[in-house]
Amino acid sequence: MSDRDFLLFLADAADAVTMPLFRQPIGVDNKLEGDFDPVTEADRAAERAIRDTIRARYPQDAILGEEYGEEGESARKWVIDPIDGTRLFISGVPLWGTLVGLTEDGRATTGVMSQPFTGERFIAGPWGAEHVRHGEARPISVRKTTRIEDAVMFTTSPRHFHGEVRERFEGLEAATRLTRFGTDCYAFCMLASGHADLVVERDLKPYDIVALIPIIERAGGVVTDWSGGRMEEGGHLVAAATPELHAAALRMLNG
Amino acid sequence: MSDRDFLLFLADAADAVTMPLFRQPIGVDNKLEGDFDPVTEADRAAERAIRDTIRARYPQDAILGEEYGEEGESARKWVIDPIDGTRLFISGVPLWGTLVGLTEDGRATTGVMSQPFTGERFIAGPWGAEHVRHGEARPISVRKTTRIEDAVMFTTSPRHFHGEVRERFEGLEAATRLTRFGTDCYAFCMLASGHADLVVERDLKPYDIVALIPIIERAGGVVTDWSGGRMEEGGHLVAAATPELHAAALRMLNG
Repeated sequence: MSDRDFLLFLADAADAVTMPLFRQPIGVDNKLEGDFDPVTEADRAAERAIRDTIRARYPQDAILGEEYGEEGESARKWVIDPIDGTRLFISGVPLWGTLVGLTEDGRATTGVMSQPFTGERFIAGPWGAEHVRHGEARPISVRKTTRIEDAVMFTTSPRHFHGEVRERFEGLEAATRLTRFGTDCYAFCMLASGHADLVVERDLKPYDIVALIPIIERAGGVVTDWSGGRMEEGGHLVAAATPELHAAALRMLNG
Repeated sequence: MSDRDFLLFLADAADAVTMPLFRQPIGVDNKLEGDFDPVTEADRAAERAIRDTIRARYPQDAILGEEYGEEGESARKWVIDPIDGTRLFISGVPLWGTLVGLTEDGRATTGVMSQPFTGERFIAGPWGAEHVRHGEARPISVRKTTRIEDAVMFTTSPRHFHGEVRERFEGLEAATRLTRFGTDCYAFCMLASGHADLVVERDLKPYDIVALIPIIERAGGVVTDWSGGRMEEGGHLVAAATPELHAAALRMLNG
């Protein structure tokens, strides 16, 4: 099995767990005292299925997952978010995704996002970036937007920005052609496919982004933290269709 | 053809226009000076196809559509939003929908929402409310949430609330279990299907809501303006899974 086929096989394993539970009455637990950070049996079962699939093929590799933490030590580490956008999942909205990425020596090289209700997978690796649907694969690439005033921007929620950062974000939002909220991992896939130009997020964890880094980069986009550094360890994020747009957004966010 | 089959036939006519243009590079015009209110050739062509389909079967009926205005006069009036969520459409996000509803003597009786990328239709009429996908229809109903603190709420954008109303909306948002942004017509369908509990919107036009009123009401939900009146003529909206939740949200929004 090629690395590319293995990504699709991982997606199959996850979808077999998540799809039957989507839009079903299932238990939702809260991980966060004083706030609401939902986790469902679908998150846990999907992560177990993905871990089993990885261990069977690559028993030497390390694994990091949102629900079950870290296991093993290796230059190759698989990073899993079984359901990115659990809030969307529990609200019936099919924009959540299963994320599985591989880092080699700390650098994200390969990744898949699977959204089984729409039947979409976005995958990337050294061979390129693709959108796969109904068994049909096509290469994806960003569009060439360079100016904020022409950009379509996504962020999960304006409530993630506070104080001075909130003011700067609102300045950026006002400058864009269009800003949309509420998309989680799907936003990055729209950026990589040339339907959007800019994604801004705060406080991402490694499992929120590792799988998506190769999808964005292999599609021609730029993704860094707010200091211009790599995002494999998480942090505040700016992803953009072009280096020019990325630099312009960073300038506005950093004041 | 039954009224129910005619709704599905209208959706077929619209989907044949919208789907081939979704995620394609198409012209986007701006309807609003000093702001961005996009309209595409897909909006216009879909509305023409829907109008043609209605006129062929019901030449005596009146029609109101977002793009081409009012024609005819009759106690029966079809109300069309060819693409509700044009911003989502032009950003590649498959949560937009084609809305066609029928009012009889000013009361919405029948409606369809079609989202062809996910392959979903939500339809309702005197026979009930249904979700139709891949040719399979199943009845839908709201869930029984009565308290704000248990409610999942949707609104298109927090930017639609200003001044005192914004403060009240933020109070309501803080009181809910979970609030999501960015869903347009899809939110009402999730409410009617029992995946969400509350939708709040400002300044809706008749074509934004007429098709959705029967879907919400036939699924057991409550939809009114902020004074508790009917929504067929548009206005500020509260839709809720139960009368108790609806009353509680109205109280918070009206201060």
